[in-house]
Amino acid sequence: MYRTKTCGELRLANVDENVTLAGWVQRVRKMGGMTFIDLRDRYGITQLVFNQEKDVDLCDKANKLGREYVIQVTGIVAERSNKNAHLLTGEIEILVSALTVLNEAVTPPFTIEDNTDGGDDLRMKYRYLDLRRNCVRANLELRHKMAFEVRRYLDAQGFLEVETPVLVNSTPEGARDFVVPSRMNPGQFYALPQSPQTLKQLLMVSGFDRYFQIVKCFRDEDLRADRQPEFTQIDCEMSFVEQEDVIRIFEGMSKHLFKYIKGIDLPDFPRMTWHDAMKYYGSDKPDIRFDMRFVELMDILKGHGFSVFDSAEYIGGICAKGAAAYTRKQLDNLTEFVKRPQIGAKGLVYARIEADGNVKSSVDKFYSQEILQRMKAAFKAEAGDLILILSGDNSNKVRKQLCELRLEMGNQLGLRDKNKYACLWVVDFPLFEWSEEDQRFYAMHHPFTSPKPEDIPLLDTEPGAVRANAYDMVINGVEVGGGSIRIHDSKLQHKMFELLGFTPEKAEERFGFLMNAFKYGAPPHGGLAYGLDRFVSIFAGLDSIRDCIAFPKNNAGRDVMLDAPGVLDQIQLDELSLQIVQH
Amino acid sequence: MYRTKTCGELRLANVDENVTLAGWVQRVRKMGGMTFIDLRDRYGITQLVFNQEKDVDLCDKANKLGREYVIQVTGIVAERSNKNAHLLTGEIEILVSALTVLNEAVTPPFTIEDNTDGGDDLRMKYRYLDLRRNCVRANLELRHKMAFEVRRYLDAQGFLEVETPVLVNSTPEGARDFVVPSRMNPGQFYALPQSPQTLKQLLMVSGFDRYFQIVKCFRDEDLRADRQPEFTQIDCEMSFVEQEDVIRIFEGMSKHLFKYIKGIDLPDFPRMTWHDAMKYYGSDKPDIRFDMRFVELMDILKGHGFSVFDSAEYIGGICAKGAAAYTRKQLDNLTEFVKRPQIGAKGLVYARIEADGNVKSSVDKFYSQEILQRMKAAFKAEAGDLILILSGDNSNKVRKQLCELRLEMGNQLGLRDKNKYACLWVVDFPLFEWSEEDQRFYAMHHPFTSPKPEDIPLLDTEPGAVRANAYDMVINGVEVGGGSIRIHDSKLQHKMFELLGFTPEKAEERFGFLMNAFKYGAPPHGGLAYGLDRFVSIFAGLDSIRDCIAFPKNNAGRDVMLDAPGVLDQIQLDELSLQIVQH
Repeated sequence: MYRTKTCGELRLANVDENVTLAGWVQRVRKMGGMTFIDLRDRYGITQLVFNQEKDVDLCDKANKLGREYVIQVTGIVAERSNKNAHLLTGEIEILVSALTVLNEAVTPPFTIEDNTDGGDDLRMKYRYLDLRRNCVRANLELRHKMAFEVRRYLDAQGFLEVETPVLVNSTPEGARDFVVPSRMNPGQFYALPQSPQTLKQLLMVSGFDRYFQIVKCFRDEDLRADRQPEFTQIDCEMSFVEQEDVIRIFEGMSKHLFKYIKGIDLPDFPRMTWHDAMKYYGSDKPDIRFDMRFVELMDILKGHGFSVFDSAEYIGGICAKGAAAYTRKQLDNLTEFVKRPQIGAKGLVYARIEADGNVKSSVDKFYSQEILQRMKAAFKAEAGDLILILSGDNSNKVRKQLCELRLEMGNQLGLRDKNKYACLWVVDFPLFEWSEEDQRFYAMHHPFTSPKPEDIPLLDTEPGAVRANAYDMVINGVEVGGGSIRIHDSKLQHKMFELLGFTPEKAEERFGFLMNAFKYGAPPHGGLAYGLDRFVSIFAGLDSIRDCIAFPKNNAGRDVMLDAPGVLDQIQLDELSLQIVQH
Repeated sequence: MYRTKTCGELRLANVDENVTLAGWVQRVRKMGGMTFIDLRDRYGITQLVFNQEKDVDLCDKANKLGREYVIQVTGIVAERSNKNAHLLTGEIEILVSALTVLNEAVTPPFTIEDNTDGGDDLRMKYRYLDLRRNCVRANLELRHKMAFEVRRYLDAQGFLEVETPVLVNSTPEGARDFVVPSRMNPGQFYALPQSPQTLKQLLMVSGFDRYFQIVKCFRDEDLRADRQPEFTQIDCEMSFVEQEDVIRIFEGMSKHLFKYIKGIDLPDFPRMTWHDAMKYYGSDKPDIRFDMRFVELMDILKGHGFSVFDSAEYIGGICAKGAAAYTRKQLDNLTEFVKRPQIGAKGLVYARIEADGNVKSSVDKFYSQEILQRMKAAFKAEAGDLILILSGDNSNKVRKQLCELRLEMGNQLGLRDKNKYACLWVVDFPLFEWSEEDQRFYAMHHPFTSPKPEDIPLLDTEPGAVRANAYDMVINGVEVGGGSIRIHDSKLQHKMFELLGFTPEKAEERFGFLMNAFKYGAPPHGGLAYGLDRFVSIFAGLDSIRDCIAFPKNNAGRDVMLDAPGVLDQIQLDELSLQIVQH
């Protein structure tokens, strides 16, 4: 037994107990003849006291301890005269009678504090030290709790966690697969799953009825800011369900998490059609912590001689409550913001509602106060508000620009509080997406997504108008989960393949084994998948999923701590029947 | 809503309720003007009744249903006149008023029954149909429950589940790695983890204190009967612990599983040293559901003129209680059994204890009754017992042969009841294993395993005698888990590397990053890992781990259902800078 207590549990009630603790030296302070050490473990920090007058040798030994030494101490719990209200253990200290150095430590390359002096690269190289920081470890403790509560909820709802294989074949997700050469089958490769999509559908064919799995998935994509080559999904599927059944169960799961992790009782989640989300927020994952909906202004502002608007196919704006006091400089910055290449607007029109109710805009010379008042009414704007307007020749493009502007205004006005949670379901996604480039339809979700029954006739006449039984769960503007009801009718599935441009041969080659399985009695089924990394990062209030992953990879897909990937011996390559091609 | 109830929940109390069920047609029986259908889902089977007199069209429709059709029915719950005591729903049936065919099914290639007519290969190819069989699904339900209870127990003990990466570098486990070419780092490869051993040790350096993970591990080995290229571990590690602490926590976990899954309260697990296990059972994983310990007979039987024994370096035997009635044919079969090449004994000597207490042996001409009586006393044998004796020139080899014979006798005498569970800890493993072939020591567990403190002086003088702080948990003769206290002292670790024949450069190359991490303050730590597949198979009473894996691979490492692995397009190979070498 290395310890009788942890560094986080001693209180006033323990005073006079003889205890043994073990942990890391956080800080050594000498004050007069006394030495104080903060001893740290996962559970907290406890103050140790060494008194030179009582035991000079022991005190000398303590004075020689460096940061991050691992030590074991025995002593008596005493009440502190100088209490620390920030620590749960701040009312006590240990009068140490014995000290053992369990392991020495060289000085870490950065400080083990919440506000560390270590840069990103250094912290990633020494991730095992970075993980000692309370704020980083807390994210992983949260991750553990969330995964545990997900399992507790789903188990209670009759879901079975079934492990699907990691060494599989190519999946029809569309992204690039990571592959694994098979030594026993020379020249052949396994693929790592982009998701267990087909396997979970097979489990429904097997009658598993309610399946889930918290599972690693893999995509070999060029990494953007918040992507990892391996990520974790909460993957779920149910049989004999309609969209409403799936939504009910998983809204319940999210509420369960908010309740048991955050102590928040959430009301029922609002639903928004994809069409409304695009129209009012310019995004299929609107952040509805704040309102600031788009108002369309074509009727009001077009045809009054302002050529930019007169030639526009879309004019729309947002009303920032109480922002009329924005200075010229702030407005110029907003204009710069929307004109950045990532956003790409040509310019920004603004209008202030003055104290007397008059509207003062940047395009006053084209519009009478009467027109401007009609605009004000359209926004239900009030004195002190600021109206911001964008326009352009492609309504979707402008809406996306306006979405960025809206989010920026939300940030500037403090409307995106990380401790406030606004959840919603976005529903009625289009089944297809038209690619101008390829002049063909693509499945917006995946080829197994079922159309709304009432829209099936449109498959022949107007495929672009067909809505899917697909749904996304959005929290604070982040898509945390999404899914669909699947097609279980093989005739309809074949029609889908046809519309997506698969020849029967190609469809057979790619999806044959699933279609074959469906011949043996497939139940109606549907499901969804959550991105666990993202879900945790929202709960933790993090900007990046990387901070809730123990050992993340960098943007080049490297683990700089492990120095992976690396080169293989020639023997290994030979065993795998492989040769590296030099470019 | 496709159903108001499942096929497993209706009872007499539900009589007269109007319900809707959905599921698969298990069986259609026509009897007179009535049609009976067994409707199956994951939860059970419910009998449906169609009466030709009441609704001839509906009854006709029911008669056309084939096996495994997916249907939805609505009807009234009625009490059965002809109750089926084997079914929980056997007291009721549904008088169907509406029937919808949700999906047709072609005839499955084998029957969906516990005793199916499908062979192994066919069932693996159509695994999604095999999984419909109750007995197969029950194994996966058990697996879910066990994993859930493991998490519940470990969470309550303060363990955090931390996901470690799947795309890593080579691990020092010694087996062959599966590798993943990195497109973004041409010519370089990730390795899939053989276990998270080094990562969990890093988490201890990080101060995580108590870590676990239920995690996929990968070994590219030639597959034997009960091996899979991917398998699941319950992987655990703890800081500031000694062997006793680890054993206490994980004995607790096993007891928890037996209690909550099987309803069995187990007593404390006995401990056995590796030395005793080898001496008395010829195995480091003895099946102690039955006694039948080895008795050494060198003192008694050597030097009496029987040349086989006189030249032997080991003579040992077992006493099979009550087996004296074995016929000559049975004894010949046992002789054949031990002489099979897999076992390799030269012959078998036997001795019966007759009703009068006399010993009648196959080597009577060499031994007086007095000597035989001494042998009988050594076994504490009684009238009716059968003594079986093996000998040879290598005591370990003979012990292994005797172990096989003991297990075979256990089987023949019905002493290995699958519903009886005998758990034990095997402790005090040797730290090193001597390889005659390579004339050097290997780590028996892995190079990070710590020696017993009191044996450290022997490292210099007699390494083969050093005992490790290593322990295995054995249930019914199967090693379900094992682990060790790790070395946290870098001087001792370097000595280990030296003894294992690593040059300082080689040690640095292979274990450098872990050794480097240890410099920053490594706590004393240790842990263990369970094989979940094996643990579940013992609970399920299965002979193979394959039966508790949803989608297992065959002995050639192929998933015959998915037809994986497969070939890649040239484009994919080019992207990965790879070329296949034709042999």
